[in-house]
Amino acid sequence: MSTQIANAVPFDVKDLALAEHGKRRIEWAFQSMPILQGVRKHFIKMQPFANLRVAACLHVTPETANLMITLRDGGAHILLCAASPHSTHDDVAACLAKDYSLPIYGIRGESGAYFSAHIDAAVAHAPQIVIDDGCHLISALHERNPAWLADVLGATEESPVSAIRLRVAAKEGLLRFPVVAVSESNTKRVFDSRYGAGQSTLDAIVRTTGHLIAGTTLVIAGFGACGRGIAMRARGLGASVIVTEVDPVRALEALMDGYRVLSMSEAATLGDIFITVSGNKNVIGREHFEKFKNSAILCNAGHSKAEIDTEGLASAAYSRRVVRDFVEEFSMRDGRKIYLLADGRPVNMVAGEGQPAGVMDVSFANHALVAEYLVKEGASLQKAVYPVSPEMDHQVAKLKLEAMSVKIDRLTVAQEQYLANWAETA
Amino acid sequence: MSTQIANAVPFDVKDLALAEHGKRRIEWAFQSMPILQGVRKHFIKMQPFANLRVAACLHVTPETANLMITLRDGGAHILLCAASPHSTHDDVAACLAKDYSLPIYGIRGESGAYFSAHIDAAVAHAPQIVIDDGCHLISALHERNPAWLADVLGATEESPVSAIRLRVAAKEGLLRFPVVAVSESNTKRVFDSRYGAGQSTLDAIVRTTGHLIAGTTLVIAGFGACGRGIAMRARGLGASVIVTEVDPVRALEALMDGYRVLSMSEAATLGDIFITVSGNKNVIGREHFEKFKNSAILCNAGHSKAEIDTEGLASAAYSRRVVRDFVEEFSMRDGRKIYLLADGRPVNMVAGEGQPAGVMDVSFANHALVAEYLVKEGASLQKAVYPVSPEMDHQVAKLKLEAMSVKIDRLTVAQEQYLANWAETA
Amino acid sequence: MSTQIANAVPFDVKDLALAEHGKRRIEWAFQSMPILQGVRKHFIKMQPFANLRVAACLHVTPETANLMITLRDGGAHILLCAASPHSTHDDVAACLAKDYSLPIYGIRGESGAYFSAHIDAAVAHAPQIVIDDGCHLISALHERNPAWLADVLGATEESPVSAIRLRVAAKEGLLRFPVVAVSESNTKRVFDSRYGAGQSTLDAIVRTTGHLIAGTTLVIAGFGACGRGIAMRARGLGASVIVTEVDPVRALEALMDGYRVLSMSEAATLGDIFITVSGNKNVIGREHFEKFKNSAILCNAGHSKAEIDTEGLASAAYSRRVVRDFVEEFSMRDGRKIYLLADGRPVNMVAGEGQPAGVMDVSFANHALVAEYLVKEGASLQKAVYPVSPEMDHQVAKLKLEAMSVKIDRLTVAQEQYLANWAETA
Amino acid sequence: MSTQIANAVPFDVKDLALAEHGKRRIEWAFQSMPILQGVRKHFIKMQPFANLRVAACLHVTPETANLMITLRDGGAHILLCAASPHSTHDDVAACLAKDYSLPIYGIRGESGAYFSAHIDAAVAHAPQIVIDDGCHLISALHERNPAWLADVLGATEESPVSAIRLRVAAKEGLLRFPVVAVSESNTKRVFDSRYGAGQSTLDAIVRTTGHLIAGTTLVIAGFGACGRGIAMRARGLGASVIVTEVDPVRALEALMDGYRVLSMSEAATLGDIFITVSGNKNVIGREHFEKFKNSAILCNAGHSKAEIDTEGLASAAYSRRVVRDFVEEFSMRDGRKIYLLADGRPVNMVAGEGQPAGVMDVSFANHALVAEYLVKEGASLQKAVYPVSPEMDHQVAKLKLEAMSVKIDRLTVAQEQYLANWAETA
Repeated sequence: MSTQIANAVPFDVKDLALAEHGKRRIEWAFQSMPILQGVRKHFIKMQPFANLRVAACLHVTPETANLMITLRDGGAHILLCAASPHSTHDDVAACLAKDYSLPIYGIRGESGAYFSAHIDAAVAHAPQIVIDDGCHLISALHERNPAWLADVLGATEESPVSAIRLRVAAKEGLLRFPVVAVSESNTKRVFDSRYGAGQSTLDAIVRTTGHLIAGTTLVIAGFGACGRGIAMRARGLGASVIVTEVDPVRALEALMDGYRVLSMSEAATLGDIFITVSGNKNVIGREHFEKFKNSAILCNAGHSKAEIDTEGLASAAYSRRVVRDFVEEFSMRDGRKIYLLADGRPVNMVAGEGQPAGVMDVSFANHALVAEYLVKEGASLQKAVYPVSPEMDHQVAKLKLEAMSVKIDRLTVAQEQYLANWAETA
Repeated sequence: MSTQIANAVPFDVKDLALAEHGKRRIEWAFQSMPILQGVRKHFIKMQPFANLRVAACLHVTPETANLMITLRDGGAHILLCAASPHSTHDDVAACLAKDYSLPIYGIRGESGAYFSAHIDAAVAHAPQIVIDDGCHLISALHERNPAWLADVLGATEESPVSAIRLRVAAKEGLLRFPVVAVSESNTKRVFDSRYGAGQSTLDAIVRTTGHLIAGTTLVIAGFGACGRGIAMRARGLGASVIVTEVDPVRALEALMDGYRVLSMSEAATLGDIFITVSGNKNVIGREHFEKFKNSAILCNAGHSKAEIDTEGLASAAYSRRVVRDFVEEFSMRDGRKIYLLADGRPVNMVAGEGQPAGVMDVSFANHALVAEYLVKEGASLQKAVYPVSPEMDHQVAKLKLEAMSVKIDRLTVAQEQYLANWAETA
Repeated sequence: MSTQIANAVPFDVKDLALAEHGKRRIEWAFQSMPILQGVRKHFIKMQPFANLRVAACLHVTPETANLMITLRDGGAHILLCAASPHSTHDDVAACLAKDYSLPIYGIRGESGAYFSAHIDAAVAHAPQIVIDDGCHLISALHERNPAWLADVLGATEESPVSAIRLRVAAKEGLLRFPVVAVSESNTKRVFDSRYGAGQSTLDAIVRTTGHLIAGTTLVIAGFGACGRGIAMRARGLGASVIVTEVDPVRALEALMDGYRVLSMSEAATLGDIFITVSGNKNVIGREHFEKFKNSAILCNAGHSKAEIDTEGLASAAYSRRVVRDFVEEFSMRDGRKIYLLADGRPVNMVAGEGQPAGVMDVSFANHALVAEYLVKEGASLQKAVYPVSPEMDHQVAKLKLEAMSVKIDRLTVAQEQYLANWAETA
Repeated sequence: MSTQIANAVPFDVKDLALAEHGKRRIEWAFQSMPILQGVRKHFIKMQPFANLRVAACLHVTPETANLMITLRDGGAHILLCAASPHSTHDDVAACLAKDYSLPIYGIRGESGAYFSAHIDAAVAHAPQIVIDDGCHLISALHERNPAWLADVLGATEESPVSAIRLRVAAKEGLLRFPVVAVSESNTKRVFDSRYGAGQSTLDAIVRTTGHLIAGTTLVIAGFGACGRGIAMRARGLGASVIVTEVDPVRALEALMDGYRVLSMSEAATLGDIFITVSGNKNVIGREHFEKFKNSAILCNAGHSKAEIDTEGLASAAYSRRVVRDFVEEFSMRDGRKIYLLADGRPVNMVAGEGQPAGVMDVSFANHALVAEYLVKEGASLQKAVYPVSPEMDHQVAKLKLEAMSVKIDRLTVAQEQYLANWAETA
């Protein structure tokens, strides 16, 4: 299952011939990752991972490749396996194997057995630092419980859902090394949800439908971080935005920001385009489809397909057909058509290009800096799940500002004293 | 010092002849206080304060008058004294005394002795519930330590600085009843800082200068809640906005929101109008005045006059004179003029009309609902400082939405179950 | 009726003691008139009006004073009379007389006889150049038909309505000298309507009502230049904006800009604040008042009070009373209150501060430059009404940009050739 | 060269097997063409083209197909030939031939001889009404001068450049029938330039680069209709926008809209993304490339590739390579990279999807209504080039509003009288 180039590392990729295409994409993504560029310079100088084994289980994308290269340049013996059988970019994998001699295990569409075997390869790497997205590698290490498990200094975890499960494990005394939940950094939250999802969701709608957004009425279910980002961008493209919410404080904020706030039942009759980002299920269901205008567009940008009752839509319609890539038409008995994008799955991930490299830059800079921190401090941490520290958040933001040549002010000594004593001041 | 109308309550106001003018202003403000209107209806029905003594020490304004009337209509024996010798609206005080027979103590410009005596009157009221802004009445009760101090069910406190001091007192075991810090509600924070300060600061600048904002370059020092609100409004009026910050995460957010982010040293050469809301001192100082363009406008909307080094400005200038109400011109030796608004004090409070009634509505609805809560639960609380509960935040937001006839969605039972189990879902 | 300081010019003002106050206001306005500052420098050097008599009939405001000083500094023997018996700022008039020795005729509240006599003084000045606002002086010159009427090189006219009447006169062969309609410059149109009315209308509403604009639904009747400006500013302050129109192309533009477009009949039930800028009469009438929400605010920012059917409102209400300066409350039989601002007259002019100096700067720079042009070219023009030339528009815009230190690009010779031949290019 | 299905019309398309794919795309586009839908209903009822021959020479796209079907449903004997050898969508052509039995002549990539022969087929159709884009068919009719040329009632022309040439021809007495320049309608101008180019240009940049727009500095050369649209959308996506201009009035408007205005020389050092829409040549040239930041993105959305000096860029760079579809990297000697999109050709047309169907809807509804008008009035018109009448503009806007279920107000008789007499009113 594993191939080996003479005098080189083992790997398992689809086709080395794809390497050149992958290389161009990796390099292009790196242009949009100035924070990671800054981290890389720092790592080259400091060699924080010298002689350490690092294993990563991530989606194999151009951005991930740049994280791998950055860690390697910091001295790490790095190994990468795929975090899903379906997400590997085979050209990127090929380039990592061929041009960077990096042990990489991942093939798009691989079977479950292959996928497991690839994770086994990562376990066998005996990592001292673990980088994970979805808890596959952390779980495998605990399940197979190798002799050297006690040597693991710590892990980073990308997924917020996994962070919750790991907290349960820690509470029950099952966690064997500290984990830092990268999803809980402020920089990541702002970039992923507000700016990332905002742009990528509208972009996916325009790509799949070809519609002009200006002049449309656009309904957003949910005014959390993603909802705010999408509302901001939809207005920026000329839509009249309606927000629905179950939380009155959020509803009030939407209202004060100049959006219309209605119940979904009222909004259903008005919308040209509907986007769900509520974090809940069936926020648009059968009672709403009946009120939809002809030609209404329906999509989800929340994590779960459950936000839209797609089964209810199918059963309410008397026929359905695909009319464009990622666009399915449902014909209602009264002659109206409803268009569902990407089968209700996250439209920006499925039908668009996912997060821009500039957004992943923030995530992966967090992973890299947390990994460096774990080398230094992991041994002294408890076997628990930690958030990213404010200091690290600041460092990520600083590197981004430096990359953009933006200078900000520093507190003077007098100002620091003033702040320390501020309760004294009028 | 106290006057008494036959068969009526004692009071101390400037001139009862002002009552009619005050009445119109109180009624007008009530129009813009829909949340308090909702609370009042609820109080009239439920009589939560029946037979209870309530004393309030607040700035005597039309909005405060409406809070007093609301509490009275809820059954309270209410007494009001001024929270500052300088802020009383004498017409409002006159109306409360004359038309509402409410014991009210406050005269604009009163001496320190009078001010103290007015607080004494509130102490003598033997309140079971206390409403405070700046901790004057809570302090007096503790200092004079009356026999019935143990009967106080609790207090509400408006000022965030006082909340901090009260927490110190509680930690040292000195606090004798529970206090709820109203400033720490989400609704209040959003309304006061983002929407309130945003509109009122720009409004004050337009009133004092008569300037057209469109086409100007406007520099905002600080991107906290107030800074964001002001930036949003300044852009909304057509300004090109520059933000300065010391915190890299906030700086990055400003940048991602499309504002320019610079050091104050760079911004100093570009701005037409400067506004400080940093929470720090001397964020604009002598090194910046030297770089200012001719005719630059300078003002502060943060809590403290210390944000601008006004002494440094005075010593750098060779002459100064008042050229309009709240506008002072400083002539520099090289011929440039710099204009300081409101002597560096909070320009929206001093030179504008302060917070709109619609903003105070949120604060005072919080006070009223917290007071109701303290009647029920005060006895079971610890002698500590509490934040406003999320439930109360929700209630305030709900009342506001109802007043605006805005309907929002409710969770179905199935949705509630889904959320409770969300870690299970993909 | 006319007073004379020893060795000085005759004048007629209310009280010379007001001069110092007036002086400060004139100087402050001048700070906000950078274009006129540039024109003044140019005039001081070129002396275009040397030995010429110029008479102006304008509203006597700080901005007008600066135009007078600018013309005087260009060599003109200038005389100013009031364009209305009600608009003179007596402090400004006093300063012009006392500090600038300028013959000025105007007293706020003067009788019709005085007003006429003041215009007579301007006729008697035997002007070679005339500056007019409302056609009073141009008419007087034609009616009294003095011997030297043929010596008039030309006039400028501020009012668009007067321009129309003058065109009728010219067509009938009655006009005796050329007139340039300053209202028809592009710079003036943009500044006055879009940016001027936009800011000043919202400002007037906030001042008169004290309301928070964020979160309100604001209805604008008419989407011409003023309506666009107001819509832009209302959205910028956080309102949800509804537009009503009779013109489908404008309605469509409003829609594409992300505003809601409804009939007034639908909008009447939704609005918190209504603003008319349609240029028509009774765009809000009795059938709409019946649908208004309680506490709706109603005002006009168009030229004519006729936009709102105020008589209809009065007869629909069973009582009315003034509740704040410029705010009248109409009580309907069903208990609803409707608030009319400024009696339906232009709310920004009546209840606000009118146009900012920065807006008048554009108008008056146009007058000054057109006057210079008339000195050179007036004799060769026909006795007709002319628009401002694009060249002069450009010059005004250029001076404004220079005053703001904004550099723009210039066409290269190659680019000019390219544009001249553009039909040739693909 | 022409094929014929039994009992059906002749045609020349690439492959009838593509018809099904084309059909879906035609139907999808029709969903976004509500104005044309309204026109079609009207045509079906009125049959304005009964027994008339109509020939169209247009880009063969899904939107064009819908115009053809609409005209056919109005009774026309319609024939379509391609307006360019490179723009035909072969699937659309196949569907028109197969499913609609429409004589259609166009194959993507056809030779010049074929292209001419296809236009000959249109000439041979002996059209009484002509629909043209780029003047190919109008020219051919004049050149070949067939006997029945005098029977042509009139033509519509899409291209603004062709309109100018036709005006020259008309002036020289060469034009043999009236032509209406559809590009000169207000609705078309607003949709194409402001909303169409605004969205599609930003969309194309995101697609080709994958970049996050929020937080970038985006430089737009030119503030005409396209520039305004792009600036609006770029700000809406979170960019900080800089405008460069040569026209001071436009520069001033950009400034008053809150954008920064700089010379290109200054902007060159600041921009992350540059977009040219100036209508001129070499607005970004060698002197600017030298100042660009590393990784700057450069593209054109104006009509002509000449806006950017791409030859100057090539000669300044020491190497170039394609790094992504439509993205070429130029490496400068000092190590900086500059990225040119779509080789400087209109990025939204070449690298994006061109105008959304909702934009073409406006254009083609104009063509259809003008064609109907020419049937009625063409004979009485002069042999000249006409703009679209305001009435037709209104009709297009009305149909769009109706399709969106938007109701607007109508003038009452009293209001019409008021407007007719408005010079009388104060």
